[in-house]
Amino acid sequence: MPFQFNLEKQGTNTSARLGEMITPHGMVHTPAFMPVGTQGTVKSMLPEEIKKCGAEIILGNTYHLYLRPGHDTISKLGGLHRFMNWPHPILTDSGGFQVYSLGALRKITPEGVMFRSHIDGSRHFLTPQKAIEIQEALGSDIMMCLDECTPYPATLSQTEESMNLTVKWAELCKTAQTNREQALFGIVQGGSYPDLRKQAAEKITSLGFDGYALGGVSVGEPKEIMYKITDSITPLLPTDKPRYLMGVGTPEDIVFAVSCGIDMFDCVIPTRCARHGLLFTNSEKIVIKNARWREDNNPIDETCDCYTCRNYSRAYLRHLYIAGEILAMILNTIHNIRHYMRLMENIRLAINENRFGEFKKDFLNK
Amino acid sequence: MPFQFNLEKQGTNTSARLGEMITPHGMVHTPAFMPVGTQGTVKSMLPEEIKKCGAEIILGNTYHLYLRPGHDTISKLGGLHRFMNWPHPILTDSGGFQVYSLGALRKITPEGVMFRSHIDGSRHFLTPQKAIEIQEALGSDIMMCLDECTPYPATLSQTEESMNLTVKWAELCKTAQTNREQALFGIVQGGSYPDLRKQAAEKITSLGFDGYALGGVSVGEPKEIMYKITDSITPLLPTDKPRYLMGVGTPEDIVFAVSCGIDMFDCVIPTRCARHGLLFTNSEKIVIKNARWREDNNPIDETCDCYTCRNYSRAYLRHLYIAGEILAMILNTIHNIRHYMRLMENIRLAINENRFGEFKKDFLNK
Repeated sequence: MPFQFNLEKQGTNTSARLGEMITPHGMVHTPAFMPVGTQGTVKSMLPEEIKKCGAEIILGNTYHLYLRPGHDTISKLGGLHRFMNWPHPILTDSGGFQVYSLGALRKITPEGVMFRSHIDGSRHFLTPQKAIEIQEALGSDIMMCLDECTPYPATLSQTEESMNLTVKWAELCKTAQTNREQALFGIVQGGSYPDLRKQAAEKITSLGFDGYALGGVSVGEPKEIMYKITDSITPLLPTDKPRYLMGVGTPEDIVFAVSCGIDMFDCVIPTRCARHGLLFTNSEKIVIKNARWREDNNPIDETCDCYTCRNYSRAYLRHLYIAGEILAMILNTIHNIRHYMRLMENIRLAINENRFGEFKKDFLNK
Repeated sequence: MPFQFNLEKQGTNTSARLGEMITPHGMVHTPAFMPVGTQGTVKSMLPEEIKKCGAEIILGNTYHLYLRPGHDTISKLGGLHRFMNWPHPILTDSGGFQVYSLGALRKITPEGVMFRSHIDGSRHFLTPQKAIEIQEALGSDIMMCLDECTPYPATLSQTEESMNLTVKWAELCKTAQTNREQALFGIVQGGSYPDLRKQAAEKITSLGFDGYALGGVSVGEPKEIMYKITDSITPLLPTDKPRYLMGVGTPEDIVFAVSCGIDMFDCVIPTRCARHGLLFTNSEKIVIKNARWREDNNPIDETCDCYTCRNYSRAYLRHLYIAGEILAMILNTIHNIRHYMRLMENIRLAINENRFGEFKKDFLNK
């Protein structure tokens, strides 16, 4: 069954909306958050636990899987879903962002990106065609076009050049696609320049993709710029396709972006924070190693229904964290992912009940 | 309900036997293997996963829990079972073996052991009375007497002195016990000297405990000595009480000791090996990082019914291990614990079907 997006409901007095993505591996309710599974695993999580937290789709990193164990290996072993025992939808990025993050280890040319592996220093050349080849071998449900992630800050002319390269690569990615079962999303770049973003949105949407992403909005620029770009560019994207804000973000960022009409998010914040003992609650963020939790027999968050909150005290989680136990990372990650999933559930409920504007106001003023 | 041991069946033409231990937190089928939960967690395992692997009882380390988070803290939080979300039986050791392992950081006196914490260097004095106080605060189902673990090698007179100290401490532990709901086991020491072991067995059993352990049989002495001591001393222990061979061992050690009439085991081998990528199978031990598994789509062990073997390939486990992913430790530990539990199930089945002698022969000659 090919990819499909159904816009189920347009919110009242808001750009927020409810949708369903139908993919070869199942359905995803939007707005959706995708936990990040960099190396074929959402760090420290059994796939069944991820699903139990409410996640319907996860993100896989093309760059990492290409280098190790290799997309050909994963393909031979039955594709990424089978390999990692996650039979539900997967979106893969293009590898562009990770390569961009390599800094001095990469060089961008009009044909693609020459880079050195962070693992063994070996040389590789990632082209738009190659990015599609890898993602087709992985067998993800949603593939992303290779883009150049424009750094912040960058001059107008640098940004324009970079944006045009991303548009050209998007065209090449579309041409390279051989498997129409896998969706392909285009990416709108253009840095912090609204006019360039607008041009990019026009050019990318005119190419025609299954969905559209805003890229390069979480690369060190001030939050106001990210918010302004999201607010002004999202409405330029087709309403009948999913819209994905890449690499975002905090709960506040997500609520704001949903109000602009964004449908999809991914971010390492919940999982990475968990491994560092930073736990989300509805009121405050808890630093679990703090001495104040030493004899605290309460769960992380009284309002949370996650496995960790149902079965363990702050005191126990503090003990595990201080003792350096692996179980600390497992239990913390379960909680933070569930926290994000509850946020998405609450967002969807609020839209459905025509009170998202109020929800947003309460959430951001809290 | 107080502790109870029912000898269900004495094997035919073997000392191997089937039993049931009834504890305040449930029943344990013997011969039993106890996964080690050093710091209030069996490393990398959710308690539900341990149970699903077939474990009915786990071991907790008094030394570690006393130092961190402290037995008083655990007691305030509802005891060790509640603290770690393991509502099934727990045996706690006395702390003696860990203190013994501290080497230069400890000094033994007739009253107890003075030692320095491996965590912060703080000074502590562990007495027989204190060992019981800590274990009563933890609330374990089975407590162990404080013993002195005689090093190997040791002279006859050193060993005799050490053995007599253990006997004296056993008496003090028994006197110190205030909670009769928790079982208390005595420990037979005596090093590699059969006569001293025999004396120790007589003295300790005459004191009257709920069960008896052979201690100090896995401290670096040659295997033949361990086997000889186990073979000659186990029959001297009362048949109507459980017999526990502390810190043992490999699958082969376990099968041998069961044939001598041992009922209980604990060892870090399955869990520690798992974290280092050494996986047990019915034919060979697998070093999961080996390149030969790179594209191997088979489970670790075709005959294994564990969660890992049902869902993941050797290639995936190799990938996780090489990538340093936490999930590698989780999945490997599930497999190795289940492997040990299947061994115990097969041992019990063989005894029940009057073919343990044959089972042992096949197993040890394989």
